[in-house]
Amino acid sequence: MFKVDLNCDLGESYGRYTLSEQQEILKYVTSANIACGFHAGDPSVMRETVKLAIENNVKIGAHPGLPDLNGFGRREMKITPQEAYDMVVYQIGALQGFLSTCNETMQHVKPHGALYNMSAKDTKLAEAIAQAVYDVSPSLVLFGLAGSELTKAGEKIGLRTAHEVFADRTYQSDGTLTSRSQSDALITDEEQSVSQVVKMVTEGKVTSQQNTEVSLKADTVCIHGDGEHALAFAKYIKETLENNKIIVSSIIE
Amino acid sequence: MFKVDLNCDLGESYGRYTLSEQQEILKYVTSANIACGFHAGDPSVMRETVKLAIENNVKIGAHPGLPDLNGFGRREMKITPQEAYDMVVYQIGALQGFLSTCNETMQHVKPHGALYNMSAKDTKLAEAIAQAVYDVSPSLVLFGLAGSELTKAGEKIGLRTAHEVFADRTYQSDGTLTSRSQSDALITDEEQSVSQVVKMVTEGKVTSQQNTEVSLKADTVCIHGDGEHALAFAKYIKETLENNKIIVSSIIE
Amino acid sequence: MFKVDLNCDLGESYGRYTLSEQQEILKYVTSANIACGFHAGDPSVMRETVKLAIENNVKIGAHPGLPDLNGFGRREMKITPQEAYDMVVYQIGALQGFLSTCNETMQHVKPHGALYNMSAKDTKLAEAIAQAVYDVSPSLVLFGLAGSELTKAGEKIGLRTAHEVFADRTYQSDGTLTSRSQSDALITDEEQSVSQVVKMVTEGKVTSQQNTEVSLKADTVCIHGDGEHALAFAKYIKETLENNKIIVSSIIE
Amino acid sequence: MFKVDLNCDLGESYGRYTLSEQQEILKYVTSANIACGFHAGDPSVMRETVKLAIENNVKIGAHPGLPDLNGFGRREMKITPQEAYDMVVYQIGALQGFLSTCNETMQHVKPHGALYNMSAKDTKLAEAIAQAVYDVSPSLVLFGLAGSELTKAGEKIGLRTAHEVFADRTYQSDGTLTSRSQSDALITDEEQSVSQVVKMVTEGKVTSQQNTEVSLKADTVCIHGDGEHALAFAKYIKETLENNKIIVSSIIE
Repeated sequence: MFKVDLNCDLGESYGRYTLSEQQEILKYVTSANIACGFHAGDPSVMRETVKLAIENNVKIGAHPGLPDLNGFGRREMKITPQEAYDMVVYQIGALQGFLSTCNETMQHVKPHGALYNMSAKDTKLAEAIAQAVYDVSPSLVLFGLAGSELTKAGEKIGLRTAHEVFADRTYQSDGTLTSRSQSDALITDEEQSVSQVVKMVTEGKVTSQQNTEVSLKADTVCIHGDGEHALAFAKYIKETLENNKIIVSSIIE
Repeated sequence: MFKVDLNCDLGESYGRYTLSEQQEILKYVTSANIACGFHAGDPSVMRETVKLAIENNVKIGAHPGLPDLNGFGRREMKITPQEAYDMVVYQIGALQGFLSTCNETMQHVKPHGALYNMSAKDTKLAEAIAQAVYDVSPSLVLFGLAGSELTKAGEKIGLRTAHEVFADRTYQSDGTLTSRSQSDALITDEEQSVSQVVKMVTEGKVTSQQNTEVSLKADTVCIHGDGEHALAFAKYIKETLENNKIIVSSIIE
Repeated sequence: MFKVDLNCDLGESYGRYTLSEQQEILKYVTSANIACGFHAGDPSVMRETVKLAIENNVKIGAHPGLPDLNGFGRREMKITPQEAYDMVVYQIGALQGFLSTCNETMQHVKPHGALYNMSAKDTKLAEAIAQAVYDVSPSLVLFGLAGSELTKAGEKIGLRTAHEVFADRTYQSDGTLTSRSQSDALITDEEQSVSQVVKMVTEGKVTSQQNTEVSLKADTVCIHGDGEHALAFAKYIKETLENNKIIVSSIIE
Repeated sequence: MFKVDLNCDLGESYGRYTLSEQQEILKYVTSANIACGFHAGDPSVMRETVKLAIENNVKIGAHPGLPDLNGFGRREMKITPQEAYDMVVYQIGALQGFLSTCNETMQHVKPHGALYNMSAKDTKLAEAIAQAVYDVSPSLVLFGLAGSELTKAGEKIGLRTAHEVFADRTYQSDGTLTSRSQSDALITDEEQSVSQVVKMVTEGKVTSQQNTEVSLKADTVCIHGDGEHALAFAKYIKETLENNKIIVSSIIE
């Protein structure tokens, strides 16, 4: 039997500012990445979001980001590996505070935005982040781009890792995502999107834009909670996966 | 045998900004309150400060403050009890992250600045903070002004509390500190300062500015780490307490 | 002929966070209060908002707030008059930067949220804010609650002031707004709302909840740009005022 | 007669955090770059610093930085040219607010830290910053690294520019500064330091580390206000320049 996790970002509101997340998305995903106050989220939003995830029986992970609320953590910053280590420890801890009040255990850590992208390519940053996760708790699962420096660093240090794949992005022959600056970066056809995921999960392969078959692991799929069709797509992908005899389940059960 | 804890604030630097704390103060105190990034401190400072405290065998506590770096957490803000709960959970968690990387246990939580003062008088705020500490971990010790609403709230909920007294401040007949706006608020004579502490610890009493004897508990004494004479005074008070057969020791041993 | 200004808050988005302001509101108001980055707004939002106001021929004012993005500037903070002075100068200047790039002149300054409420009652804070506005430019108009300490302070120093009234709030016999904690604080009937404004503008009087006639000046009316009925109400009040031979026009023409 | 400006950074304290700037430096420099609240400085510090500069008859410039107080604006961030434009307009405006309260005119704008370095190399960023300065006021002087993209962009748009040189840094044969990662980046010998400046001012040349003569303009010299020998060096360089018949004077007199 094949198995895959569906994860989505959550808790990205801030003070009076509400992102149009659709909480109903929690019916379809199995893991939630909760913002920790650096790129989004605040203590009150974090408390409410943790509660919501627990009520929906969705596993919780920290979603640490760069200290850039105005840029939503999407602008690369030249931070040192030590700074990356420190800000990841801080944010995991902060979210763990709210989990402790609910006697709940954290499942995973997935860096957000530019920190995610930077740690996919930069070995030293990746190792610092993996070390941070390991040092806080070796039983945490590290989520990273499939085949990236981050999952490598996690495996090297002895962490359980989850290779993340994308339903709506195309891949290059070297296994990287097609850059968003390319016109063919996004898959807009839902059926093609889901077929790609089914293939990644069941065959461990993706067809690149260069028409080659690329091997990759697919432990978890990133699902978007915002946008018009988000809910419909989440429902559709979950059902299709299950119809293909793929178990949709969190990483740690 | 009488026993008392000596605590000091620590880790209040931020980025390039260094407060002239004297790390040698750690030789004389038994508990350290570490800033958690809201009124002072940042992730890197927190990591370094936790390491320093452990090396000096000093017990560690979280020092959560108001989200006001520019005002150093000293300006009162009208926050709701729920907001106080949330920001305390967040900050305890963040510091706990760094303690986890060192396999170290947190001893206590002491609110900082305006949050400390507000929670000494405001029952609802005090109860929210006590609840936050309890919910994160019922084994944490809550530090608060001796006889305040905060220590009351902690005791009510079943937390171990530490009543804090001040060596360099005078008291009123109702047990409160003389307001800093009064000319007789501060004790500048070191001998008088230490005598007041010895009396508070051994007799459970302080002589008020109205010349009455006021009962109070003295579990921990606040020691300042900055200022010219800080080190000399810390050394002096520790020695004098010990010469008076008072054991200087952390709350949890 | 009677005359009144209609003002609304604008530019309260921040980074990826968009408030559901309806830009069409600019068709009905004559003055806009633009957030300056402390309680809301950021440099990019400010540039876009200034452009939008100019395109709609709406006069521009600075809307300085407390440095509390997470609380949207609505939580009172114990700041000193000097701090109030400094943060108002800073924020007026920042907005003026964008007006300079458009060769546009600023019409007014209206404190936001808790700063508005605090300066309505606290004479020293009011005087510090009036002084800040005056010192940056004596030709600026100071917007404040009708009959408040703020408008008094503005008049005392020689600033042109605009007494602000509310369409959807009831008044007490001493001329203050009924506290939002009272059940009769809000006027939900649109006709009653507009009648109150017409009376305030044409007779200089409002009927209090104690059924007394209270004198007040009504130079400008606060119009909300968010909420479901905001646009419809803005249109309705503008038309009704004009049908009552009241000129709807900015303070400085 | 040759002429040169001496400039130093100022107003980098923040709230309770004081940088050990030595105000006496104002006796020796002719222009001051004042932090504007993004990488350092706050409204109260800005007011005090403006006052200090005026009292010492030193010309004032804005020192806009990246929105990264924790990293002191020294960490590169991938911002768009539009974002650079917006944050520069905002910060110039904010400082101008304080200058307006003193009826004082701003002389110049010099980007800080990573923004300075990025705009020295990145043409689009440089042009956006030059445009921002020009749009706020075409009479402002733009300070940038001598021969950099920033001074080029300033000249292209019609701004008066000041080419900045460094006394304590060595140069490469292409006119750039030797990277700080190289062991020969810094000049520690004071006499050599000052000789380099005298040569740059009087001959328009600097001897590179490759022992070639490189042409460059030297309109202003960056002087550090912190560090042990800062004051002594400032005094020494000013006197030596004057002994060499070089007039030490601000850009706009």
